[in-house]
Amino acid sequence: MSTILPGTPFDLNVEDGEDGDHLKEECGVFGIIGDSDAAAHTALGLHALQHRGQEAAGIVSYDGRQFNSHRGMGHVSENFNNEAVMDRLTGDMAVGHTRYATTGGTILRNVQPLFAEFDFGGFAIGHNGNLTNALTIRRELQRRGCLFQSTSDTEVVTHLIAISDENTFEERLIDALRQIEGAYSFVCMTNTALIGARDPLGVRPLVLGKLDKAYILSSETCALDIIGAEFVRNIDPGEVVIISHEEGLRSLKPFPKQHPRFCIFEYVYFARPDSVSEGNSVYEVRKRIGAELAKESPVDVDVVVPVPDSGVPAALGFAAASGIPYELGIIRNHYVGRTFIQPTDKTRHLGVKRKHNPNKEVLAGKRVVLVDDSIVRGTTSTKIVEMVRQAGATEVHMRISSPPTAHPCFFGIDTPDYDKLMAAQHNLAEMAKILGVDSLAFISIDGLYKAAGEAKRSGEHPQYCDACFTGDYPLPLTDKNAGSQPKQLSLLSEERQTR
Amino acid sequence: MSTILPGTPFDLNVEDGEDGDHLKEECGVFGIIGDSDAAAHTALGLHALQHRGQEAAGIVSYDGRQFNSHRGMGHVSENFNNEAVMDRLTGDMAVGHTRYATTGGTILRNVQPLFAEFDFGGFAIGHNGNLTNALTIRRELQRRGCLFQSTSDTEVVTHLIAISDENTFEERLIDALRQIEGAYSFVCMTNTALIGARDPLGVRPLVLGKLDKAYILSSETCALDIIGAEFVRNIDPGEVVIISHEEGLRSLKPFPKQHPRFCIFEYVYFARPDSVSEGNSVYEVRKRIGAELAKESPVDVDVVVPVPDSGVPAALGFAAASGIPYELGIIRNHYVGRTFIQPTDKTRHLGVKRKHNPNKEVLAGKRVVLVDDSIVRGTTSTKIVEMVRQAGATEVHMRISSPPTAHPCFFGIDTPDYDKLMAAQHNLAEMAKILGVDSLAFISIDGLYKAAGEAKRSGEHPQYCDACFTGDYPLPLTDKNAGSQPKQLSLLSEERQTR
Amino acid sequence: MSTILPGTPFDLNVEDGEDGDHLKEECGVFGIIGDSDAAAHTALGLHALQHRGQEAAGIVSYDGRQFNSHRGMGHVSENFNNEAVMDRLTGDMAVGHTRYATTGGTILRNVQPLFAEFDFGGFAIGHNGNLTNALTIRRELQRRGCLFQSTSDTEVVTHLIAISDENTFEERLIDALRQIEGAYSFVCMTNTALIGARDPLGVRPLVLGKLDKAYILSSETCALDIIGAEFVRNIDPGEVVIISHEEGLRSLKPFPKQHPRFCIFEYVYFARPDSVSEGNSVYEVRKRIGAELAKESPVDVDVVVPVPDSGVPAALGFAAASGIPYELGIIRNHYVGRTFIQPTDKTRHLGVKRKHNPNKEVLAGKRVVLVDDSIVRGTTSTKIVEMVRQAGATEVHMRISSPPTAHPCFFGIDTPDYDKLMAAQHNLAEMAKILGVDSLAFISIDGLYKAAGEAKRSGEHPQYCDACFTGDYPLPLTDKNAGSQPKQLSLLSEERQTR
Amino acid sequence: MSTILPGTPFDLNVEDGEDGDHLKEECGVFGIIGDSDAAAHTALGLHALQHRGQEAAGIVSYDGRQFNSHRGMGHVSENFNNEAVMDRLTGDMAVGHTRYATTGGTILRNVQPLFAEFDFGGFAIGHNGNLTNALTIRRELQRRGCLFQSTSDTEVVTHLIAISDENTFEERLIDALRQIEGAYSFVCMTNTALIGARDPLGVRPLVLGKLDKAYILSSETCALDIIGAEFVRNIDPGEVVIISHEEGLRSLKPFPKQHPRFCIFEYVYFARPDSVSEGNSVYEVRKRIGAELAKESPVDVDVVVPVPDSGVPAALGFAAASGIPYELGIIRNHYVGRTFIQPTDKTRHLGVKRKHNPNKEVLAGKRVVLVDDSIVRGTTSTKIVEMVRQAGATEVHMRISSPPTAHPCFFGIDTPDYDKLMAAQHNLAEMAKILGVDSLAFISIDGLYKAAGEAKRSGEHPQYCDACFTGDYPLPLTDKNAGSQPKQLSLLSEERQTR
Repeated sequence: MSTILPGTPFDLNVEDGEDGDHLKEECGVFGIIGDSDAAAHTALGLHALQHRGQEAAGIVSYDGRQFNSHRGMGHVSENFNNEAVMDRLTGDMAVGHTRYATTGGTILRNVQPLFAEFDFGGFAIGHNGNLTNALTIRRELQRRGCLFQSTSDTEVVTHLIAISDENTFEERLIDALRQIEGAYSFVCMTNTALIGARDPLGVRPLVLGKLDKAYILSSETCALDIIGAEFVRNIDPGEVVIISHEEGLRSLKPFPKQHPRFCIFEYVYFARPDSVSEGNSVYEVRKRIGAELAKESPVDVDVVVPVPDSGVPAALGFAAASGIPYELGIIRNHYVGRTFIQPTDKTRHLGVKRKHNPNKEVLAGKRVVLVDDSIVRGTTSTKIVEMVRQAGATEVHMRISSPPTAHPCFFGIDTPDYDKLMAAQHNLAEMAKILGVDSLAFISIDGLYKAAGEAKRSGEHPQYCDACFTGDYPLPLTDKNAGSQPKQLSLLSEERQTR
Repeated sequence: MSTILPGTPFDLNVEDGEDGDHLKEECGVFGIIGDSDAAAHTALGLHALQHRGQEAAGIVSYDGRQFNSHRGMGHVSENFNNEAVMDRLTGDMAVGHTRYATTGGTILRNVQPLFAEFDFGGFAIGHNGNLTNALTIRRELQRRGCLFQSTSDTEVVTHLIAISDENTFEERLIDALRQIEGAYSFVCMTNTALIGARDPLGVRPLVLGKLDKAYILSSETCALDIIGAEFVRNIDPGEVVIISHEEGLRSLKPFPKQHPRFCIFEYVYFARPDSVSEGNSVYEVRKRIGAELAKESPVDVDVVVPVPDSGVPAALGFAAASGIPYELGIIRNHYVGRTFIQPTDKTRHLGVKRKHNPNKEVLAGKRVVLVDDSIVRGTTSTKIVEMVRQAGATEVHMRISSPPTAHPCFFGIDTPDYDKLMAAQHNLAEMAKILGVDSLAFISIDGLYKAAGEAKRSGEHPQYCDACFTGDYPLPLTDKNAGSQPKQLSLLSEERQTR
Repeated sequence: MSTILPGTPFDLNVEDGEDGDHLKEECGVFGIIGDSDAAAHTALGLHALQHRGQEAAGIVSYDGRQFNSHRGMGHVSENFNNEAVMDRLTGDMAVGHTRYATTGGTILRNVQPLFAEFDFGGFAIGHNGNLTNALTIRRELQRRGCLFQSTSDTEVVTHLIAISDENTFEERLIDALRQIEGAYSFVCMTNTALIGARDPLGVRPLVLGKLDKAYILSSETCALDIIGAEFVRNIDPGEVVIISHEEGLRSLKPFPKQHPRFCIFEYVYFARPDSVSEGNSVYEVRKRIGAELAKESPVDVDVVVPVPDSGVPAALGFAAASGIPYELGIIRNHYVGRTFIQPTDKTRHLGVKRKHNPNKEVLAGKRVVLVDDSIVRGTTSTKIVEMVRQAGATEVHMRISSPPTAHPCFFGIDTPDYDKLMAAQHNLAEMAKILGVDSLAFISIDGLYKAAGEAKRSGEHPQYCDACFTGDYPLPLTDKNAGSQPKQLSLLSEERQTR
Repeated sequence: MSTILPGTPFDLNVEDGEDGDHLKEECGVFGIIGDSDAAAHTALGLHALQHRGQEAAGIVSYDGRQFNSHRGMGHVSENFNNEAVMDRLTGDMAVGHTRYATTGGTILRNVQPLFAEFDFGGFAIGHNGNLTNALTIRRELQRRGCLFQSTSDTEVVTHLIAISDENTFEERLIDALRQIEGAYSFVCMTNTALIGARDPLGVRPLVLGKLDKAYILSSETCALDIIGAEFVRNIDPGEVVIISHEEGLRSLKPFPKQHPRFCIFEYVYFARPDSVSEGNSVYEVRKRIGAELAKESPVDVDVVVPVPDSGVPAALGFAAASGIPYELGIIRNHYVGRTFIQPTDKTRHLGVKRKHNPNKEVLAGKRVVLVDDSIVRGTTSTKIVEMVRQAGATEVHMRISSPPTAHPCFFGIDTPDYDKLMAAQHNLAEMAKILGVDSLAFISIDGLYKAAGEAKRSGEHPQYCDACFTGDYPLPLTDKNAGSQPKQLSLLSEERQTR
């Protein structure tokens, strides 16, 4: 879920953020029906999905009588750690959301799940993805007299349901889904059902699990693992599942079948290594990318060093394939929180060291290949290379387990503009020079596809969405093409929740 | 502004509340345009109106570019005491609201001013009063597909404006006002204007002030005093004033003229004694009530003792008229906050003493008349009488500066149901017995009207709304008569803001 | 209890403080033994003593096994309002303290009761007053190797007990008391007893009460009233009472008898009007001062207006004696908390209005006499006079119910230096001019003594300590005369507790 | 630094603690002199030492005029993340401390650095280690009249300095050090100098670094790395270094030379892998332990899986030596904070999953050897083994990179009593059965010594303190042998700081 309207940025120091200079997955979603501990399981599930969004989290439960909600800034474990909160979230149904906010908009009103009270009942919705015609619809709805309470793209869905001419909730929901464009995995809840919906291309993930009689919907399988649930299947692209006490699970396919385009970057970085995405072990795909990379761009060095933590599986694959020893040449300090000491003039240059420290014994006098998952702005990578050299490495090479990230994502990933994307501004040689490495190589598109299963299908229907590498966007960019800009005049700068 | 939907009660211990067993005014409103310190002046104004609502406060300012808001639970001085908050509330226009919440609904979403983003700009609204057909309208709007973000009656106004077929904002506003029934003093703000509106009967107060070139709207004149503004005039019943930089103040009278019915209880208890309401000094009216009371129901005692603080002016009037010495026989502890030590079994009986202590020297061996403003449930009064007797008073009489409160208010005052109103359940003799007094008398309706100016006009157009004494409601009770009950199925129990 | 070492001032805006431009009583003390709800009763007692110190509060209880403490910045009701805190303060003995801090030193380490662990058991002590040789003793003890944990004068007592050569606790305590000089009412607790001690001149108050089998010690009788305890007697000057389960109450008189010198300012301002101090009703003394004042310095005006709240009883006495009507010409806003909106350039001049508002109807066109209790710096009074004039008063006279405050107090009251005391810098005519009044008069010393009982005894043994008016200090000022200045080099600036 | 007196336990759920079932290092110390950003560098240094104590952190700086301190519960980054705090910690000298508290005593009074104000100046002290005769000395000092403000063993040092008969600070410090027994690395600060002191056996680490002209003392070299300082040398066992602006660094050796006994567990678990301890790279020692273990106790399996994060280096060594592939079979969730959702009845069994998730693709159908650093209670290990089996492993073997932990530590490490130490209660076969593994092996004492450099020296002077494995305590256990128990009668249960 992305934020439509720009606003006051949350006071996160990007460089000290959870994962430094990486693309940010924008959300994780989770839902459960049929378990008397629905909210507690949802909190655990969201905790397992914490890597998909660290800035806010929320849960809405339904207990047959009323909906109960708790939402807050910060980690899942910060918001759902006291009994009073959990005791209030009664019911055997719950949906939850964990969120990374793009610049503008980390205000409590935007924290999901969003809740709406329809004439015919309540409705909670959590969204992973991004709607590409939300602004266009929003304006039309505002012209009709709809009042929006958030600046989130997701809210257009609730209004479209509310004003639909259809009769049943199911028909209204499908009516709404037919009007929106973009990438979405929705987990929703009404007074009677848990609902999952995935966009026709299946860009973002959504899986179905079971725990005794309870059904679970989740962005990734690792959230099934944490509560001891079994993985049942993926929700299909374009599928809507409606799970109620009365009728169990019903599957609807309201859209014409299309060629799926799952986000290949989920394999590269977003998904947790212990998840199984679209049938593949994320860990194994990453190792295979590392192995491919070793084949495509071998290098004669003494040690393979991962940039922790995201570079670890690819580095293991690279080391195994190349026969070069794998060593922990960089130690990551896991105590880095969301905020820290403001750098002073004398400590500003220490930046990256708050999180990474060179393990000199491993690096000194060695030829080193660093393996990382991607390069976005290149700022952190440059500092890491410099740090490794200062620790005594005689050569520093870099191998990246994704192709150059040269295009922004409009489908739910926070990416900087073209002018901040290193690969959009520089060729390989220039990048190597800026980074200060002796050599630099990225996995090829084909290498990446092969690691994920098979070579890229030619023609207009490749297996994955790889737009951030290729610029081939599989979905219309209606808002963008209309030059839609959020209306600024009446913008509300609201208090942000402080902890 | 009252809350439509029942919900989780705020954890106020009613007995330890600000004013114990009193009716609660539900809100104070304030607005200013044309002053570069708009938010600071609004905070001071709200502080002067604090007695009209102690549970939450909010300010929305507009700086020509965007609206800025801060709202929170608690007193004005608790929410607007730090520079960071005030610095964010830029602009030369602001509206503010201080609120008492009825049972159900002190959640942050309901704290006013409410904000809405229309197709044509932003809109903030604060409301003192209560709409009597809000539920009926809300249902109709929900059936149309309008989504409500609060449980407040005030929000129907924003939706009515949003969906109005009229063109200009002014026409839309009047269109909306024509559809609502009830008591209201609104202070609103758009991108270009500060707006005040008072219901056709003028049940709740609203005054206009000026500070240099800035215009001010306020519930009471005491909020003009605190910022050094001069009182210009009352907003007339049924008047809408629109104040903009371009056009200055314009006055509209969109309703047919009606006989005004200002709330007479404002004189008895709600208004601050240093305010001038509808042309009368509240302090002087109260003193005159005391004097009338001494004439109507004299008593042969040694001392006149006010129940502090609300009984003080009437007690002064009673003492002056009767020639009996006025003495501070009860000392009030002003340090009582909103919460305090939970009573244990051994301290529970101490209840009233946290706030009131007898001044034994004044009471011991004396015949005492206690003067208080009203009796609602009678619980606190009973304890005070007992306390005064234990301090050694030989006789305890009670004189009340309002008629018996026998009917609930539907126009913006929080009143208990009939079964909790002592005067609805008991006759005078029974009340005296329960209270434990040697004699009990209330001011007569006519005495009260006379103290406020002149005897009550007979026929269907008396000068004031006195429904809480007489049951004569001057406005239709549409929701009540329709038996409207809030729809419960989809009710959202949301986190309350905790401090 | 005063603070020895200067330090970081607490961020109280003095002008917005609880009582503006007044001398500040520095502490209230309370103790109880023999009641299973000891801590709850202590919290209520401290709440009744809140006027004696609003910046911090603490309670230490003893449950036969261990001492339990809770201390915090802010009001009693803010610190002792949650069950978890109260549940931890188990035991049938407790001592409590409420504190006003002089500049420097409102850090948590200084909040009383102080606790010390002796070789032979634990010890908690709360202190009202100020030791005048504490610095001198402290240095000597530091030279011996004693380590101090607070910057409070009270801590020397615990060290003197710890290093005493005597054997029993009782002998050690008396040994310590014999070494200290100054004003003190101590309430202490050991593993076996509650102890009260009052300095030989009885400068500060201490009373004994009883509630069933429980004994209570308190600064004032109003704290007995709040818990329903009966007043037994004053603790005598120079008396030490030791109350234990085994031996009940034992009274020791370890000092040679001296002429008592109770602080006469307790009558003027410090004590609560409903307290009985040294046998006199404070309220009645204040009314008599007002009556004396009317006799000594009559004035031909239309209304007597108290400066609320402290001027009220004297104004009532003045009005009754003069026959001039008493009117509430100034309304006080009781919602003023400890902090509030930082004044901006445009709102700074509004200052006094946050707390006081003129009641124009009473003042306009009238000749007014304002009655207040004292003038310290004169800043607030000047603003009030100006405010009253702006409200339309044609003449403004001022009558003060204490003699000119021309000397600082060294016995437990926070007073500004000579250069800030208006009466130390100016004669009556100058003061009247600065204040902007048409006439100004203070009660005479003799008038004050008479109101308190009888005319001032001539010679070296007057009945009261009136040093702040006369400069006649009844106790040695050892530290001051030694020019003792706290040692600054190793001063610790510690975190202050923030709420 | 350990806590002498038992008290209320901090509400940490041990199982959800930072490192589950591990021995806990009790402290990290850091000090700097000669850098204008002393406090900021100290905060960064403590952040790098966070693994040595996560429950509280403090810094005291000295600015030539006064000492400034800030201490709080929680992580370094939580306590030193706002400008207001850092701005107050002025000066070019600072000492800092990060702390793990044993049961009893995480109250703010105990959070270090402790501060004392001597007759001749201020003194701040931070301590890593534990004094074994602190209780004995404390009693003696209390009998003399010394009053203790904390329950920490470290405070005896300040009192011994305060009462020393010596003249200069230096002589007093050495006088004090000569009286204490136990393990200690002190970092202290006076008005003129930064001081480091290490006990004669050098049980706990302390290193010296330099950054431009500034000297740094730190528990580990990783804290030098984070601020870009260079490692100069270890502080020698028994050495006292005094670093002042005037005299630079002076080294004293006040004790007779002894055979050093550095804590060998620092290599196994406590130290960060990127630190260099007593000349050895911790990472390399751990890898060598893994290699030794593979030689000593080989096993025929398909994959080597580390228990993250502490088992990683040994697992790499094991994999390299055995030729068996290294795989991330267990994924650790780094978002686990200090508190989390209270387990309900239905979620309690999920326990370990909050932190560890099996990577099924790696484990299913495989024979697995898990490599971990130590087994203390065995509870977490048992759950991990079960989890790995449920993920489909056909065999689960376990190899531990330390000998069986069969004896408690008295030198600064928090260890459970004998009855909770699995290796003290069970033989190898029993342990394997309880853990549910197919085979279990620990590194031998000799293997461990060899990995750290050379085989264990026979006789009474081995190279390391290995008491937790062997029960051979190199220092007298005076308190323990005296059966010293803290005196309970006067124990103070104080408020714990809550965040």
